[in-house]
Amino acid sequence: MKIALAQLNFHIGNFELNEKKILTSIEEAKTNNADLIVFSELAVCGYPPRDFLEFPDFINRCNKVLENIKEASGGIGVIVGAPTVNPVPEGKDLFNSAYLIADGEIIGTAHKALLPTYDIFDEYRYFEPVETFKVIEFKGKKIALTVCEDIWNIGNDNPLYETCPMDELVKQSPDLMINISASPFSADHAQDRLDIVLENVNRYQLPMFYCNQVGAHTEVVFDGGSVVANAKGKIVQELSYFKEEIRYFDLNEVEQYNDTDQLQEKDRIALIHDAIVLGIKDYFGKLGFTKAILGLSGGIDSAVTLALAAEALGAENVLSVMMPSQFSSDHSVNDSEQMCENLGSPVKKIAIQPAYEAFLSMLNPHFEGKPFNVAEENIQARSRGLILMALSNKHGYILLNTSNKSEAAVGYGTLYGDMCGGLSVIGDVYKVDVYRLAEYCNRNKAIIPQHIITKPPSAELRPNQKDSDSLPDYDILDEILFQYIEKRQGPNELVAMGYDEALVSRILKLVNRSEYKRYQTPPMIRVSNKAFGMGRRMPIVAKYLG
Amino acid sequence: MKIALAQLNFHIGNFELNEKKILTSIEEAKTNNADLIVFSELAVCGYPPRDFLEFPDFINRCNKVLENIKEASGGIGVIVGAPTVNPVPEGKDLFNSAYLIADGEIIGTAHKALLPTYDIFDEYRYFEPVETFKVIEFKGKKIALTVCEDIWNIGNDNPLYETCPMDELVKQSPDLMINISASPFSADHAQDRLDIVLENVNRYQLPMFYCNQVGAHTEVVFDGGSVVANAKGKIVQELSYFKEEIRYFDLNEVEQYNDTDQLQEKDRIALIHDAIVLGIKDYFGKLGFTKAILGLSGGIDSAVTLALAAEALGAENVLSVMMPSQFSSDHSVNDSEQMCENLGSPVKKIAIQPAYEAFLSMLNPHFEGKPFNVAEENIQARSRGLILMALSNKHGYILLNTSNKSEAAVGYGTLYGDMCGGLSVIGDVYKVDVYRLAEYCNRNKAIIPQHIITKPPSAELRPNQKDSDSLPDYDILDEILFQYIEKRQGPNELVAMGYDEALVSRILKLVNRSEYKRYQTPPMIRVSNKAFGMGRRMPIVAKYLG
Repeated sequence: MKIALAQLNFHIGNFELNEKKILTSIEEAKTNNADLIVFSELAVCGYPPRDFLEFPDFINRCNKVLENIKEASGGIGVIVGAPTVNPVPEGKDLFNSAYLIADGEIIGTAHKALLPTYDIFDEYRYFEPVETFKVIEFKGKKIALTVCEDIWNIGNDNPLYETCPMDELVKQSPDLMINISASPFSADHAQDRLDIVLENVNRYQLPMFYCNQVGAHTEVVFDGGSVVANAKGKIVQELSYFKEEIRYFDLNEVEQYNDTDQLQEKDRIALIHDAIVLGIKDYFGKLGFTKAILGLSGGIDSAVTLALAAEALGAENVLSVMMPSQFSSDHSVNDSEQMCENLGSPVKKIAIQPAYEAFLSMLNPHFEGKPFNVAEENIQARSRGLILMALSNKHGYILLNTSNKSEAAVGYGTLYGDMCGGLSVIGDVYKVDVYRLAEYCNRNKAIIPQHIITKPPSAELRPNQKDSDSLPDYDILDEILFQYIEKRQGPNELVAMGYDEALVSRILKLVNRSEYKRYQTPPMIRVSNKAFGMGRRMPIVAKYLG
Repeated sequence: MKIALAQLNFHIGNFELNEKKILTSIEEAKTNNADLIVFSELAVCGYPPRDFLEFPDFINRCNKVLENIKEASGGIGVIVGAPTVNPVPEGKDLFNSAYLIADGEIIGTAHKALLPTYDIFDEYRYFEPVETFKVIEFKGKKIALTVCEDIWNIGNDNPLYETCPMDELVKQSPDLMINISASPFSADHAQDRLDIVLENVNRYQLPMFYCNQVGAHTEVVFDGGSVVANAKGKIVQELSYFKEEIRYFDLNEVEQYNDTDQLQEKDRIALIHDAIVLGIKDYFGKLGFTKAILGLSGGIDSAVTLALAAEALGAENVLSVMMPSQFSSDHSVNDSEQMCENLGSPVKKIAIQPAYEAFLSMLNPHFEGKPFNVAEENIQARSRGLILMALSNKHGYILLNTSNKSEAAVGYGTLYGDMCGGLSVIGDVYKVDVYRLAEYCNRNKAIIPQHIITKPPSAELRPNQKDSDSLPDYDILDEILFQYIEKRQGPNELVAMGYDEALVSRILKLVNRSEYKRYQTPPMIRVSNKAFGMGRRMPIVAKYLG
């Protein structure tokens, strides 16, 4: 049996595009004499469709795509993900299903049993889990067909669910496992995914064909990396990361494969880099935009953002705007100009002084003689935000936000100022990793001037300001933030790890008190296991560690 | 048996405050010779604690409050909501529980079986549902104790769950039902709640004591309205809406009650008004702020926002800022001044022309001779946002956002401009209801000048602009929005209802294409069944009806 894995980039709700991709791939697979082609989870509508699933019209459109797939399935089997209306009134209205369609008929359906409802996932919001399982026969082979999470409930110390679908399916003596997924990227998730595939093939002694989605949907990036492994525990092939691809496999050859594991290199910073580049590319592409704008301050964050955007969109499509004030250092402008020259990207300079002074003279009568404080600092940041948005509105750019995760965590940023933007590029990257990304961006040629990488970080909103005036060193700050945000360690645990109690208390308070800012932050491309945004849901008016 | 219902306003994560409220109420109940006092769902930590539930330290603090409640329970029974750690590794780590504690011991525990995971609710994100049920004996009475949603799965055509907890509990011959809830306000939810209580008492032929939380947590308002009903289907008492209160009931008297239902009047607009006032009050109170600022444009939206804020915070604590431009009409300033005079609230005037002109002269070289468009309009709106934020930062105000739901739906507003603010006051109120709220605000005395109510709406961002230049009449617009947003009707259904096809298509496209704006909108006080924000989760880069 010849099996094609179609790792494609779908567009949520863009039924025309998704259907065309699926039908074209089916034709290609027929030309290549495939017996079966496998598409990813909810391929017909793109994953995650979120609350569109609650609209009957949206489900009808999914069903129409399924009908057209049926028509196209003469002489080939097609496995594809789509929602199914639950026929009984009890329970949620939908199932999250994998269909096996061939010769115009639905041969079998597998509904998802384990519904991820944590972090960025909301599946029990929409879907009813099933508790019965049945292998599907196709061309003399029994297929144990599962959807994404269904293969993840083994080998855990703390299993999330009470059922294990493959434990049930294996009782029906399947010949192979096929899993269709929409498993998102995070820096260490590719390895998790390989581990779980291997745990499955080892436990059930069957080959597995695992087809993942690729492509970014605003904050969530799907990295592909579909994989085929066999009962000997060998990785036969790993499909590309961050790229669309269709690959063909002969089931016998897969079963026989006994050579070394076919693995791609996985460097953490390189993966983060590639994920962000795809995140930018798809955000623009799927919204129909081609050009970006950003404020280039001379600091490391905007420099890395520019480098990543230039790679995603082409340097000529990213306009940098330098907006110096009286508090800006000369090197900020020089370094920025140098970087744009290195890239060959356009740059403009607009000094903010006229606007800043206009606001001060308008506001001074109302400031009641109170001293210079964060109000004046924010006027500068907001004047810059306004300039960037005005240019966006006039010329059709999307503004890229340049904040990093450390700043977003402690609220070190100005709402409606440097926190503006359609998309936050490095909002899920701690400052220490921003430096690593900068080095990586310079791997082939000097793009980011060395001085930008080596100088001490500063917001330059008052004379001689340094980040270290109000924040602890990023090395320590990032460690504490990681333990609190990613690992959910509390104050006692952090102190037990050796961090200073007063520092811990100050940082946790800053994090919890800046929820109101993060609520209005642009969506951030997710590269960690716990990004701000839809995967981390916090009350604003709470008073816990605050 | 004497039973106290304690309908209290808890503060999420503020364990000191919550514990104090609970212990004080227990003492009061003892003084009143109550046998049993009932608190609401997750009372120890406040509801909804959201992802704080994932922090072991947070759960430990809940447990400490429970310990202190045990110590205080000498001579009285206490029913209180708290999370419980799931003792088995399979499944989610927590239960959402109701404890019955007396004389220092836990007499019984009921874990929640039906976990709302829709709209604003995420309970299956955190909690494992139970499938076994046991009545709890206390002072010779068998109590069927349930948590919130557990009583809602009866009498539906399309039940959300497969289990019905009370159907199981009733087999154990209970004497009474007690339900602890955190059931949020929406304009018609108070009636739903009474209906469900009546369906339960009628079906199970038992009295019910229903204790709800009161108080607002950012966007979600809990309206109280706890209720006691008996097996005869009589509403014995309904506790106040939007107020803390402890009331005492004799079980015999409740059982015997055969008089008319004791109901409070429920006028839709009055309820929305009261919910918003509490929403503002608690947002400020729980964050520790007392003073608000807003931009007063002379239009209906900011006028209603001011009236509501003045009621919540005191007129003297709400600063209005009029920020006319060359496009503002004279009456805008006059009407605004009149309103502040009516209220006795402070008002400032800051013309935006100096900032607007400064920006235009800075930007004109970069606008490449392109004509006046949304860029210049937004410079005005953003200059106003900047002024309001600067005053907030200087003096410690919270900025109130004045956008309505119709605008938010179609993206008729400027990000970082009039969409600024810590809290959106009327963001869940359609324009047609904003007018009704205006009339209601004037019910006792003329607060909002009549001219503000009668003049045609305008953003005043270019000469002679009217909302009706770019939007359909609000009567029609709001109907279509309601059908699409609240009722999830698709384009075909809307056309079948008689709406113009081109208009429907235009409006749905506007709604879906402005997700990116709503993503960065301030939290909106929820008064409908489907508010923007945490209860409506949409992808940004999707292409459905867009």
